[in-house]
Amino acid sequence: MTIHTILFTIVFNYLSLLLRCAVKINIINPNTSANMTRQIKQAAQQWAQTTTDIRCVSPDAGTPSVETCQDEAIAAIGVMEQIRAGDHAGADAHIVACFGDPGLDAARELASVPVLGIAQAAFQTAQMLASRFAVITTVPKATTFTRHLLRKYGADAQCAGVWAVNMPVLALEEDTEHTFQTLRTQALICIDKEDVDAVVLGCAGMTDLADRLAQDLGIPVIDGVSVAVGMAEMLVQRRLRTSTRGIYAPVAPKPYSGWSAPLAG
Amino acid sequence: MTIHTILFTIVFNYLSLLLRCAVKINIINPNTSANMTRQIKQAAQQWAQTTTDIRCVSPDAGTPSVETCQDEAIAAIGVMEQIRAGDHAGADAHIVACFGDPGLDAARELASVPVLGIAQAAFQTAQMLASRFAVITTVPKATTFTRHLLRKYGADAQCAGVWAVNMPVLALEEDTEHTFQTLRTQALICIDKEDVDAVVLGCAGMTDLADRLAQDLGIPVIDGVSVAVGMAEMLVQRRLRTSTRGIYAPVAPKPYSGWSAPLAG
Amino acid sequence: MTIHTILFTIVFNYLSLLLRCAVKINIINPNTSANMTRQIKQAAQQWAQTTTDIRCVSPDAGTPSVETCQDEAIAAIGVMEQIRAGDHAGADAHIVACFGDPGLDAARELASVPVLGIAQAAFQTAQMLASRFAVITTVPKATTFTRHLLRKYGADAQCAGVWAVNMPVLALEEDTEHTFQTLRTQALICIDKEDVDAVVLGCAGMTDLADRLAQDLGIPVIDGVSVAVGMAEMLVQRRLRTSTRGIYAPVAPKPYSGWSAPLAG
Amino acid sequence: MTIHTILFTIVFNYLSLLLRCAVKINIINPNTSANMTRQIKQAAQQWAQTTTDIRCVSPDAGTPSVETCQDEAIAAIGVMEQIRAGDHAGADAHIVACFGDPGLDAARELASVPVLGIAQAAFQTAQMLASRFAVITTVPKATTFTRHLLRKYGADAQCAGVWAVNMPVLALEEDTEHTFQTLRTQALICIDKEDVDAVVLGCAGMTDLADRLAQDLGIPVIDGVSVAVGMAEMLVQRRLRTSTRGIYAPVAPKPYSGWSAPLAG
Amino acid sequence: MTIHTILFTIVFNYLSLLLRCAVKINIINPNTSANMTRQIKQAAQQWAQTTTDIRCVSPDAGTPSVETCQDEAIAAIGVMEQIRAGDHAGADAHIVACFGDPGLDAARELASVPVLGIAQAAFQTAQMLASRFAVITTVPKATTFTRHLLRKYGADAQCAGVWAVNMPVLALEEDTEHTFQTLRTQALICIDKEDVDAVVLGCAGMTDLADRLAQDLGIPVIDGVSVAVGMAEMLVQRRLRTSTRGIYAPVAPKPYSGWSAPLAG
Amino acid sequence: MTIHTILFTIVFNYLSLLLRCAVKINIINPNTSANMTRQIKQAAQQWAQTTTDIRCVSPDAGTPSVETCQDEAIAAIGVMEQIRAGDHAGADAHIVACFGDPGLDAARELASVPVLGIAQAAFQTAQMLASRFAVITTVPKATTFTRHLLRKYGADAQCAGVWAVNMPVLALEEDTEHTFQTLRTQALICIDKEDVDAVVLGCAGMTDLADRLAQDLGIPVIDGVSVAVGMAEMLVQRRLRTSTRGIYAPVAPKPYSGWSAPLAG
Repeated sequence: MTIHTILFTIVFNYLSLLLRCAVKINIINPNTSANMTRQIKQAAQQWAQTTTDIRCVSPDAGTPSVETCQDEAIAAIGVMEQIRAGDHAGADAHIVACFGDPGLDAARELASVPVLGIAQAAFQTAQMLASRFAVITTVPKATTFTRHLLRKYGADAQCAGVWAVNMPVLALEEDTEHTFQTLRTQALICIDKEDVDAVVLGCAGMTDLADRLAQDLGIPVIDGVSVAVGMAEMLVQRRLRTSTRGIYAPVAPKPYSGWSAPLAG
Repeated sequence: MTIHTILFTIVFNYLSLLLRCAVKINIINPNTSANMTRQIKQAAQQWAQTTTDIRCVSPDAGTPSVETCQDEAIAAIGVMEQIRAGDHAGADAHIVACFGDPGLDAARELASVPVLGIAQAAFQTAQMLASRFAVITTVPKATTFTRHLLRKYGADAQCAGVWAVNMPVLALEEDTEHTFQTLRTQALICIDKEDVDAVVLGCAGMTDLADRLAQDLGIPVIDGVSVAVGMAEMLVQRRLRTSTRGIYAPVAPKPYSGWSAPLAG
Repeated sequence: MTIHTILFTIVFNYLSLLLRCAVKINIINPNTSANMTRQIKQAAQQWAQTTTDIRCVSPDAGTPSVETCQDEAIAAIGVMEQIRAGDHAGADAHIVACFGDPGLDAARELASVPVLGIAQAAFQTAQMLASRFAVITTVPKATTFTRHLLRKYGADAQCAGVWAVNMPVLALEEDTEHTFQTLRTQALICIDKEDVDAVVLGCAGMTDLADRLAQDLGIPVIDGVSVAVGMAEMLVQRRLRTSTRGIYAPVAPKPYSGWSAPLAG
Repeated sequence: MTIHTILFTIVFNYLSLLLRCAVKINIINPNTSANMTRQIKQAAQQWAQTTTDIRCVSPDAGTPSVETCQDEAIAAIGVMEQIRAGDHAGADAHIVACFGDPGLDAARELASVPVLGIAQAAFQTAQMLASRFAVITTVPKATTFTRHLLRKYGADAQCAGVWAVNMPVLALEEDTEHTFQTLRTQALICIDKEDVDAVVLGCAGMTDLADRLAQDLGIPVIDGVSVAVGMAEMLVQRRLRTSTRGIYAPVAPKPYSGWSAPLAG
Repeated sequence: MTIHTILFTIVFNYLSLLLRCAVKINIINPNTSANMTRQIKQAAQQWAQTTTDIRCVSPDAGTPSVETCQDEAIAAIGVMEQIRAGDHAGADAHIVACFGDPGLDAARELASVPVLGIAQAAFQTAQMLASRFAVITTVPKATTFTRHLLRKYGADAQCAGVWAVNMPVLALEEDTEHTFQTLRTQALICIDKEDVDAVVLGCAGMTDLADRLAQDLGIPVIDGVSVAVGMAEMLVQRRLRTSTRGIYAPVAPKPYSGWSAPLAG
Repeated sequence: MTIHTILFTIVFNYLSLLLRCAVKINIINPNTSANMTRQIKQAAQQWAQTTTDIRCVSPDAGTPSVETCQDEAIAAIGVMEQIRAGDHAGADAHIVACFGDPGLDAARELASVPVLGIAQAAFQTAQMLASRFAVITTVPKATTFTRHLLRKYGADAQCAGVWAVNMPVLALEEDTEHTFQTLRTQALICIDKEDVDAVVLGCAGMTDLADRLAQDLGIPVIDGVSVAVGMAEMLVQRRLRTSTRGIYAPVAPKPYSGWSAPLAG
């Protein structure tokens, strides 16, 4: 066999690998912060398979951060818009990259491909790696959202509690070192007093600190963006999709009016 | 005492009664169906205290009915708009008059006065009157929403189940007699096979049939609109308001952009 | 139109209002403390609709306060006696005004009209206004009763805990100022350490302090007597009654003997 | 060793055995049916240890059977009277022999020795012997009581359901053969359709049929009276008593009045 | 009647008593520590009925103590071996005498007679005597096992928590006084801070301290070995056996191979 | 840029891709059936990433299939043996490929890398794709195991039920067409009567039918082996490992004796 044949084989395999495995993931940052979108994209790309194509978007309009009940409702609309856009762009899976999983049910109903929420993905990962995890999040209100999600997803029995570090979402990236130290301090308290054996980071804006925290603390620190990307690849490569029956069954377009007309399909 | 004194006393009492008890309730039909808004208003006025002022509104834009996850997300925005409008109009309480209680958490955070959801009000009433109630709703998807709400509100242990009669929301009012017979048939099955002792009607569009069904079946049939009005009057007259701490604490206005700018306060 | 016609219209409307809305509520203080019965009546009248007729009674015989398991069992009998008496007196609704809701199931089975328990009414109100409430009660034993009720009524997931201030029921009214300060101190601890956003007062003897505590603490403080009156009015005005099927179905009189013969109907 | 020494040793051992093991159990049938009291005593004696002294009593006054919520409340008072009487008579343990466990909490607070309820004892036994048991009871109302108890005791997850055979309690003993066939038919349905692997008999009046049913069905059939006696012997012989802290802590006598004065200690 | 007749009657009764009541209990210490087996046997004999025959065994091979997940898995095999051996030796009941109840489900499937776990027996006893118990165990890992068991058995709602004293199992018996003081200190903290009203000892190696602790603390202190013996006697004397349907149904022998061949029946 | 440079770049990328992504997964079939091991390996390889190296093993000794409680206990030992062997062989992750997840806790404690159970992985996948799934398994006993796992993992609220098709594990592969039709018939019943929107296959022996069933039924059909492989790749590529604190913390070797000595590390 000549060198040319060998090289040809390698190239051929490489290309077919690309074709077979290539997964287009549409990651939706439901707020309008371009900084956070960038950071989420970085985190996603760092851990994605080489052949995965990460598209990271945020709605043109909406809320600059998701910290309140009103923000959640507005973010859900942004998610719906971007699900539709991502579907048109040929996405193989979508990820809602905000820890409250805003609009996740609507997104699953709307999309023709799987949709993952980073909170659900992070809880599931924690359930595989540990027996009693803590969630560390930003603002106090987010602790109540998170408790609702833990119960909805059935992860409450393995969760020791939810703690807020009292930093607004957009402040997280202002002084990364300060953010790191704040998260670390809270995590050490949870380990010491609550006997937790893993930490879930409760905000997409903490994505870039997960690895460093894990090294520092010596226990798993789970960032939902990173694991949701892996789970999305897994589902797509197995051709698994959201059920077309039940609450996620697709629906006929409705004559939505006014501001919501673009959502009418 | 002369006749004039007596009459004066009566008039004075009557006026002070009006002043003391008068409650302005802002009922929000989260869909854009004017027919349903009218029907909800009628049901609300039928059972409200004489001195209560019922304002029944629906968003200018949005979805004609709430039957899907996407409808729920869109309806939540309409609720937020009308909470704001109702607050400006001096409402003493708001009612979200759609059985999925869309946008209820955001509404409570936003409003300066109490906000009730008709599903929560109906479940609570059933819990006071019966030990094992059925929910009868419209479309199959609504059964899953309802199960989520039952768990969230802690009413699941007393609920025998949720049944859909497979009628779209807007079809309910087309042939009232047919709707009545369909609900009655389902209720009789629930009584016979599931041993239920009360029925909760799982759609604001069934409001006008509750009384007739109750007479016919001989057990409590609960319409959320009617009881939410009474609970709202109760809260207002006791000056009880949504907590200003925790998840419902008021928040500073945020620079919402684009379509959501009007929601920014 | 003459002044006479106007006056006549007003009088006529006023009287018809009285006829249409007038609700006779039979409030049962299950202990024999006349002082507490008086205080409960005051609280009830303060918040009731003008046309509501409050009858507040307590059994002739029984226990001077309800603080133990034995007291609960004895109080239940007193409740049954007074339900029967109230039914004969034409009550439109009954309220069991003791935080353990003693005899509530028997009362609902016995009465031909709705029966409310102040614990259930208070929990439901808290669930509408807050997301994480505390119950503050009298003696340590009452915390266990209360936990049972929270689970039975499905309110446990929204309750942060139950705390006792270690004051016997009858001591509450001896030094109102001291009682107020004690409740306030405990409430502040719950707000600070447990992050609660509402307080439920766990004893009918604390009724008169709810409003002042709410003003002081800045969060909802819920007294079951006050809200149960409003819920009773609501049910009566909608002609909603306890189910006649299931556990509350009426039963044929039984030949009860001895001390219990008067309960035999 | 002579024959006399041997005989002496045997007699001595026998007597000391009697002294060491002798347990006086006060079984309280909370209704006034003498027939049922007799039947309960027989069942208890059949399975008790030889040295156990069974005292089976019922209150002088009260209800002839426990089938309604009102019956439950009245029965609780009878239980309290007989706990007191049994304590004076030197009982080592008490058993509340009615499947709703009426007055059990009050009894535990009152007694200086352990108190067992036959429902709790039966559920615990089922949990040791099977993984999915059925409860078969008398009247439909009893199914709701039983569901409350299953949740209170934490046995609900292992219970496949509760079924009523629609026989009043006092009819059970009228035609034993008919009762047996009715229970057997219901049990066979539960085995076939609900895949149960044990049956708990939900009434003290079914006590004498447990053994025959077990033989016939080939699975455990548990009668609460029989197993409660064994558990009572176990507790007494280990000197284990109800806690003197918490909800069962003994309380100072209170000036109960009127009909309840005899309960005041 | 002569003295001979009297003596004969006594002897006859004594022997028939022995025949009727004699219960052979096979207690399996699933670890290989002979010391602990001895100690368990002593505790069991101390509280067993005079006519009960206690056989206390441990597997020839396996783990010296059960403190880890791997120990649990290995211990389960030892339990299966000794169930088989005990069945051949004619045991009337088996007890798995390790607080994690290792291999209990397999043992129930395998044995022809009842099998009790000391954790389940201890929890059930606590549920009869108290309303809020603590479990005090050895090593931190055991707290997680115990929480699983509490949920599986439905005892979690009555348990205030699980605490580890950080002593390896085999260290418990090295310095009994130190062990006693350590357990006592932890129990006092639980009573003071967590308001518990009973203590369950979470290790078969603490068996000999239960009585002394109970005396010292003044609340029930429950040792699973002691109560499991009593419950086993109760079941055997009532001829109650594990269900032969459902998960515990007996199975045909399987060709287990290699090290597991002896388990193949 | 010459053709050589381009080719070199491609080759270099390809190799570095291999190095970076290559994941060695040790799949443990806990029974000794070589056929099933082969089938599991095929299923795993079909869906694994190209660079993933699948090692599929089964214990030398143990049980030919896992259908009973005893089989589960024996299988757990086989899992421990193969975890150790796989760790020595440099595995990056382990999968326990039997639907009861036998020995999973011990495996996580033992392994230095993540361990997945196919039941947990399948439930998690179903929770992402559907709202009400059915589990279809082999023998009736397996339904009880599965219910335990659903509760342990917090997936019970989303599971409509567990159904057995009454086929022994080893019969599944005898007549694949018959197995397919049996599973299909059961799935159609679950869809029709129980309104499920996804199916989880409850046995590693059904692995090869998942895809065909999904095509036929039109809803997600989830095979735990396939998705566990993807989740394992995801965890490894993110360097996420089982927690080294809590119940899974590594432990010092213990002197296991006899048959268990090889497990002593």
